[in-house]
Amino acid sequence: MSTYSPIIWKENKLFLLDQRLLPHEENFVEVNSLSACATAITDMVVRGAPCIGFSAIYGMALWVQSQNDFTVDSIDSASDQLIAARPTAVNLAFEVNRCRKILKDLVTSGATKKELFSAMVKFGDEQILESEKKNTSMGQFALNDLKERVKKDKWNLMTHCNTGFLACGSLGTALGVISLAHREGRVEHIYADETRPYLQGSRLTAFELSKENIPYSIVVEGAASYLMANGKIDAIFVGADRIAKNGDTANKVGTSTLSIVAKHYGVPFYVVAPISSFDLNTANGNDIEIEMRPKEEITQIKGVQIAPLDAQVVNPSFDVTDHKFITGIVCEKGFIDPSIPGEVERVVNL
Amino acid sequence: MSTYSPIIWKENKLFLLDQRLLPHEENFVEVNSLSACATAITDMVVRGAPCIGFSAIYGMALWVQSQNDFTVDSIDSASDQLIAARPTAVNLAFEVNRCRKILKDLVTSGATKKELFSAMVKFGDEQILESEKKNTSMGQFALNDLKERVKKDKWNLMTHCNTGFLACGSLGTALGVISLAHREGRVEHIYADETRPYLQGSRLTAFELSKENIPYSIVVEGAASYLMANGKIDAIFVGADRIAKNGDTANKVGTSTLSIVAKHYGVPFYVVAPISSFDLNTANGNDIEIEMRPKEEITQIKGVQIAPLDAQVVNPSFDVTDHKFITGIVCEKGFIDPSIPGEVERVVNL
Repeated sequence: MSTYSPIIWKENKLFLLDQRLLPHEENFVEVNSLSACATAITDMVVRGAPCIGFSAIYGMALWVQSQNDFTVDSIDSASDQLIAARPTAVNLAFEVNRCRKILKDLVTSGATKKELFSAMVKFGDEQILESEKKNTSMGQFALNDLKERVKKDKWNLMTHCNTGFLACGSLGTALGVISLAHREGRVEHIYADETRPYLQGSRLTAFELSKENIPYSIVVEGAASYLMANGKIDAIFVGADRIAKNGDTANKVGTSTLSIVAKHYGVPFYVVAPISSFDLNTANGNDIEIEMRPKEEITQIKGVQIAPLDAQVVNPSFDVTDHKFITGIVCEKGFIDPSIPGEVERVVNL
Repeated sequence: MSTYSPIIWKENKLFLLDQRLLPHEENFVEVNSLSACATAITDMVVRGAPCIGFSAIYGMALWVQSQNDFTVDSIDSASDQLIAARPTAVNLAFEVNRCRKILKDLVTSGATKKELFSAMVKFGDEQILESEKKNTSMGQFALNDLKERVKKDKWNLMTHCNTGFLACGSLGTALGVISLAHREGRVEHIYADETRPYLQGSRLTAFELSKENIPYSIVVEGAASYLMANGKIDAIFVGADRIAKNGDTANKVGTSTLSIVAKHYGVPFYVVAPISSFDLNTANGNDIEIEMRPKEEITQIKGVQIAPLDAQVVNPSFDVTDHKFITGIVCEKGFIDPSIPGEVERVVNL
């Protein structure tokens, strides 16, 4: 198991690895208030659905630390502030809403500030441990299906964006499957696409693969068809930011593009995500709001201008992958074939 | 018509706009020998199939200027040196082989050095003028088809890589269609994808669209599915580096990926290229050699490292678009429906 964690809660203080400086610099920044935590989430100091959720829980602990009176209104206000930091990230809302409930219940039952604070810290610690167990579980479900579907000694696998320990605290979702496969000696080569505009693939996934000594190459996203046409990809694993009731999946922009190419070439395409990424209140992908991000993410790289200064951009952070292009959605409760109506709901409610 | 040209032949000297410095700096470099010309082509000072071809013709003029004796062997050696500068670019070989023949014929008939030199310069000048006429012609063929296929007052169009006056000397191929449509008042908005790894879209196409006051946005390549799913693209125009006899087309990596997504959403996908890009000796895309480019194009942007220092990459410069995903191939002789067997050969031989 990986012991590296990008989120450290130590002596009542929260430290987050500033992932914007990777892969060259490993710098942990102290986050000392709710608003600092929200800013860290918005500015992508911390990223990846699970890590955003964990950071937010400790952010609520910091909020408790800073207050003396606790009312339902003030708890709501703090919670809403954090959720607004990244509106598309359902996992953020999920964890913050659990904090909201815990705090309100404790306040109603007359708990002290110290008890509220301990409850938040304990909840954060538990969630990180729980996450590692879940990721191991979903990784095994995914690997079991892959072993049946692609009968080779060693696989060439592809992934998009970043879903390893940097995103998940430990092991990871899509990259967790790859780590588990590697530990079993079943990985031939990994193709990590660079994932424009934020380059999570070349900056973060490459960093994680290096740390685990997994053989890999970085490719541009446009190379997807070239790689699959030349038989270089046995299966693709991606994460999810939000999964609708019918299996349609919002994930980093480019995921849907990749899934369509995979379908064309008959390459299995897996979504690996925890139950907290499922949103059964969303019927299908059409109902998922897509966050638009700033122009500079595309026109500049590390402060270097790469487009005309007056250039306009369209920069959707996510896209929606049609469930028809997903071979399997894997969560800690099992494998979901999204072509079977009702299967998402059935497995989530197991 | 655009009067801006990235290739200037003046007072027996060749000047090339250093396109690596765009969009911020417009710097013309003097190229004073055959080997300097070959280096400029390899290093992408000059790029785009037509401009590479024009530069090579003037490169042959520079070679004539530098020699005193001319033999079949020395002409072959100079020609082969230039062709080797970018092995996948069929247009380069096409133009250099025409120079080779002109020079050999003249040498055989006892021409002087001055006559050889004049013949090369005249050939270069003629080819640039001829190119503008051809581009206007193919642009009209493409536009006529688009008008029939997508009956809207104004279109939202997408393009990949760079195919405008920077690549073509004037007007351009795929971007030429867009320029002509704009002059007719039929452009609503252009989506130019940035085209990783070399960013021809955000650096060059954006520069050209700006210069022509055509409304545009830059997008990442991964956003292709998002844009088409949301009905934002009426048609896509791309260029070609080599078109096989069956219509399979080698073009900048990412073209094939885009074509598969377009096919899924029913968006018309056009290849616009001159006759010189067709290679009837290549039966289909499987026979096209794909040039692999250096690692640093992916791991660095303008000298800034964006991936781990020890990262490996796979960096194919081109990919092959299956003719099944191409709505029409348009050249100066007309419109080709590649789903009709033999149609490429028929139109090329008109």
